[in-house]
Amino acid sequence: MRLVSKKYNILKTWRFGGVRGPARCAILHNSAELRMANKIEIIPLGGIGEFGMNCMGIRYRDEMIIVDAGMGFPEETPYGVDISIPNFDFLEEYRDDLTAIILTHGHEDHIGALSYILRKFNLPVYSSRFTLALTEKRLEEFDMLGDVLLHRVKAGDRITIGEFDVEFIHASHSLVECFSLAIHTPVGTLIHTGDYKIDDTPVIGKPYDLKMLGRIGSEGVLALLCDSTNSTVPGRTPSEQAVIPAFREIFEQTDGRLFVSTFSSSLHRLQIIFDIAHEFGRRVCVLGRSMQKNVEIASEQGILQIPHDTLIDLGASRALDDDEICYLVTGSQGEMRAALWNLATSTYKGMEVGTGDTVVLSARIIPGNEKNISRLIGHLYKRGANIIEEKRRLIHVSGHASQEDIKIMVETAKPRYVVPIHGEYRMLFRQKEFIKNHVAGYSDEDIILIENGNVLEIDEYGARVVETHELHKTFIDEESMEEIEYDIIRERKRLAYGGTISLVVTVDKKAHRLMGEPQISLNGVAGLDPTNGFGADARQAVAEAIRDMKPEQIADRTVFKENLRLHLKRYVQKELGTKPVIITTVVEV
Amino acid sequence: MRLVSKKYNILKTWRFGGVRGPARCAILHNSAELRMANKIEIIPLGGIGEFGMNCMGIRYRDEMIIVDAGMGFPEETPYGVDISIPNFDFLEEYRDDLTAIILTHGHEDHIGALSYILRKFNLPVYSSRFTLALTEKRLEEFDMLGDVLLHRVKAGDRITIGEFDVEFIHASHSLVECFSLAIHTPVGTLIHTGDYKIDDTPVIGKPYDLKMLGRIGSEGVLALLCDSTNSTVPGRTPSEQAVIPAFREIFEQTDGRLFVSTFSSSLHRLQIIFDIAHEFGRRVCVLGRSMQKNVEIASEQGILQIPHDTLIDLGASRALDDDEICYLVTGSQGEMRAALWNLATSTYKGMEVGTGDTVVLSARIIPGNEKNISRLIGHLYKRGANIIEEKRRLIHVSGHASQEDIKIMVETAKPRYVVPIHGEYRMLFRQKEFIKNHVAGYSDEDIILIENGNVLEIDEYGARVVETHELHKTFIDEESMEEIEYDIIRERKRLAYGGTISLVVTVDKKAHRLMGEPQISLNGVAGLDPTNGFGADARQAVAEAIRDMKPEQIADRTVFKENLRLHLKRYVQKELGTKPVIITTVVEV
Repeated sequence: MRLVSKKYNILKTWRFGGVRGPARCAILHNSAELRMANKIEIIPLGGIGEFGMNCMGIRYRDEMIIVDAGMGFPEETPYGVDISIPNFDFLEEYRDDLTAIILTHGHEDHIGALSYILRKFNLPVYSSRFTLALTEKRLEEFDMLGDVLLHRVKAGDRITIGEFDVEFIHASHSLVECFSLAIHTPVGTLIHTGDYKIDDTPVIGKPYDLKMLGRIGSEGVLALLCDSTNSTVPGRTPSEQAVIPAFREIFEQTDGRLFVSTFSSSLHRLQIIFDIAHEFGRRVCVLGRSMQKNVEIASEQGILQIPHDTLIDLGASRALDDDEICYLVTGSQGEMRAALWNLATSTYKGMEVGTGDTVVLSARIIPGNEKNISRLIGHLYKRGANIIEEKRRLIHVSGHASQEDIKIMVETAKPRYVVPIHGEYRMLFRQKEFIKNHVAGYSDEDIILIENGNVLEIDEYGARVVETHELHKTFIDEESMEEIEYDIIRERKRLAYGGTISLVVTVDKKAHRLMGEPQISLNGVAGLDPTNGFGADARQAVAEAIRDMKPEQIADRTVFKENLRLHLKRYVQKELGTKPVIITTVVEV
Repeated sequence: MRLVSKKYNILKTWRFGGVRGPARCAILHNSAELRMANKIEIIPLGGIGEFGMNCMGIRYRDEMIIVDAGMGFPEETPYGVDISIPNFDFLEEYRDDLTAIILTHGHEDHIGALSYILRKFNLPVYSSRFTLALTEKRLEEFDMLGDVLLHRVKAGDRITIGEFDVEFIHASHSLVECFSLAIHTPVGTLIHTGDYKIDDTPVIGKPYDLKMLGRIGSEGVLALLCDSTNSTVPGRTPSEQAVIPAFREIFEQTDGRLFVSTFSSSLHRLQIIFDIAHEFGRRVCVLGRSMQKNVEIASEQGILQIPHDTLIDLGASRALDDDEICYLVTGSQGEMRAALWNLATSTYKGMEVGTGDTVVLSARIIPGNEKNISRLIGHLYKRGANIIEEKRRLIHVSGHASQEDIKIMVETAKPRYVVPIHGEYRMLFRQKEFIKNHVAGYSDEDIILIENGNVLEIDEYGARVVETHELHKTFIDEESMEEIEYDIIRERKRLAYGGTISLVVTVDKKAHRLMGEPQISLNGVAGLDPTNGFGADARQAVAEAIRDMKPEQIADRTVFKENLRLHLKRYVQKELGTKPVIITTVVEV
């Protein structure tokens, strides 16, 4: 079933030749020098054990390449955080080794942190024309475009970056111009799948290049780093074309205006809508900036083929009859700033969804967005719209490999080791479980589960995690484009939880005694009642506490401030049952 | 198909006898006096357009009963909020009318706010023995048990509360001793389904009492207030017994320790586990306070039949072999304080889940909990446990009516009007859509969608929303058991988003000029760098601004403080790009 190159076959025999566990480790330690000389280190900075923020360092001797630099969508948004990015400071110790960044494709969870890593390490970037066009837009916003070296590559290319030889394998996915990477090193070949599905009939471009993958597989693959996003889903992922019949039906049955919401980067889907709209005599108007940008780039590059006269702007769309227009809109996840939310709850540039309109939600629910999407649908129903949801019609297919796609991937690449990547730990684990049980020739020790911050060492003797760094994610305020330290988040959490009290006390600089009354300002403090005089009582309590202190307790301002804080804290806890953050200022006169 | 009582039949003929729309309204207005005299008002305080917090006022003339007083689980938890409850202050205007609270069953989203409403309105409470036992525990915590009048009723009972006659219909659900209510009024009969499913073979107790419902239906029902939770689910909801085969298989196939997590109130499920555990020679140990409480009450009342010697405590369980024990644990939703989370991530009373253990997640995912549950599963996998999830085996059934159950309900109750309740607007809408399309005799105007705060008036002339109150939910800090005002939440949100700066300025009381240096304390403020001297610069900027002010600008302290705040705000925005809350204190000496 599984073809292992002679080289690894021999190694395998050697590795497990009766020496296992501690004894085997001892042997490995004895050959430490050899290992240092000839090994690959795989260091995930993000995307392992979490959704999004995909980023991985691959190192051989004193050279390191980075595959992808994605952003994540953290739960810390109440604390002024917009996105998260990998902790690139960690790469500081490898600064001299870093040689290049390779982007597998243009989704935000693979390229969204590029500007931030480039600010710290100005490395050349390699990717497809389409992916680079997306990154250029981002770099422009950061005013960095002139400073970065972008190398365009295409599927089938083989480039040399120091000791690494990288081949770009055409991968099918929900986006276009995506790659799996074959990274040839002196130790062996790694395959990084990127995001992929094995689509035999994509709408745009060719099927997944299994031929090229097979050729590389037959040359011998040391490790396959394999997307786990859909590893809990049985069977094959349907082709991008699978949604065409349902869409054709919807266009046929709909008389009123048609609003189709999908991910703004789902170009296959957009192509289908453009084609069917044209077929049924509807013009298409794109609403929402991100989708407009993607349509613009993709049609400029000839990737998206928009039928003549089909694309129109909002102004022109208003002049059409209801059955002559199809709006492509952003906001399928219930995002409150997107076009669809505005259409459903207020207006979008003077337009709103109403009775007679049909809204097609052609996207899956990304975990965490359930409530917002349900709310969005509620608003649409209230406005009288007809809603077509993913669960009820085949209007969405995933862009990620399901279990049988993963099987094809493993059987074609024939790697010595499989390392599940991209996904929560549950998905990584389920990929391992699936391969173990359903792909011949793979057992427990052939499939290696890693975590962010692990250093996975692979050499001719085996694969093992040799080190683990604790990598906190970095939070970004997108308005200032600056990092927010985790300590700041922690302070904000405390403020959020209990509010804050600002206490100002004036003391005589020399006599060390209280002057006037303490002042107290409350912000976000619960349990107050305008009639219960908490403020006056608290001032009184602080004043009494100060009067009870000895001058030397007041003379040491640090001790004095801390004592005041503790005193007020206890008082508040007793009186109000809450724990606000107490900020104490001592004024000396 | 549909049997309408003669009374309503006549009314229907009258109502739609060619007079519709505005013309019909005119007629209704002319008969205003008659309407005032004989109408029912239905006023939902919670549970409509949202999950949880079920509560409804039903009024006839100067009498009003309350059905259920449930809690909700709001998204405001980062702001010190534990639960939400309906805004009972709204009932103040009905204070003299309120006569009773009826609880349909003992789930928290139906009884969790009872203590809070009773604190404001000390009304007699009617419910089943089991439900009252649960509420008593809650009232004890509030030290209110002695002050509240609890009336025990049982299925089949008919009681009189003023002008209301209430019959208690035995309802099947995931909990036990649940009721649907038939509320007879001089205007007609309302049926409030409570939570229900049409279970022909429940594990505990009898099937849904369709006979009683049918009898009431044939006497004539004006309106059916009907649970919508599962109105998007086709078919019938499987019986509680449906999970038995899968559980038997699991017990048969498992050698190691078995942990079964389910909702602590799912008594049918608990009974099944006790029975099968006994059958397979395992003892059962219950971990987690809420489940222990429910098991205790239910077995005391003879509802839960625990086989002899099966229930043991944690200490005794440790002495058993792995295949002799089954733990029933709380925490199926990934709650971080529950038993299962502790077992998976650290320890629970010295015990942890590990290799060889099997964990059964016998519960659905409540929307919003996806991420936590996925994280929980990741931790369990990391510990080496085998996990059995709901999606892969039939180990959970819903307690709510699916579409075909709803059809049975409507066809048996034969109401003049249907009012969907319990659920997000999407579910209410889908119930309407389903009944309209699949139950003979119901069209658009027979199914009435309402929202929290609506006053739905029903009389012999029709059903209509006559008023809408804006009802904000009330947030509760469970530690202090106190309300948190929405203004406080708003302040906390601002603190969370940008942190806070406390600015203290000392001025000469008479000369109105700055004394000493302004003092600044920062908390949760991003963009600072120990080396960039922001603090010193900001102090300097404030001092300069004060020096530029005229004495009269300083003399008016209110204007002075506001000017200082604005000045510092602009300075911070320019320098740091952030918007902290600025708290200004002026000290006069």
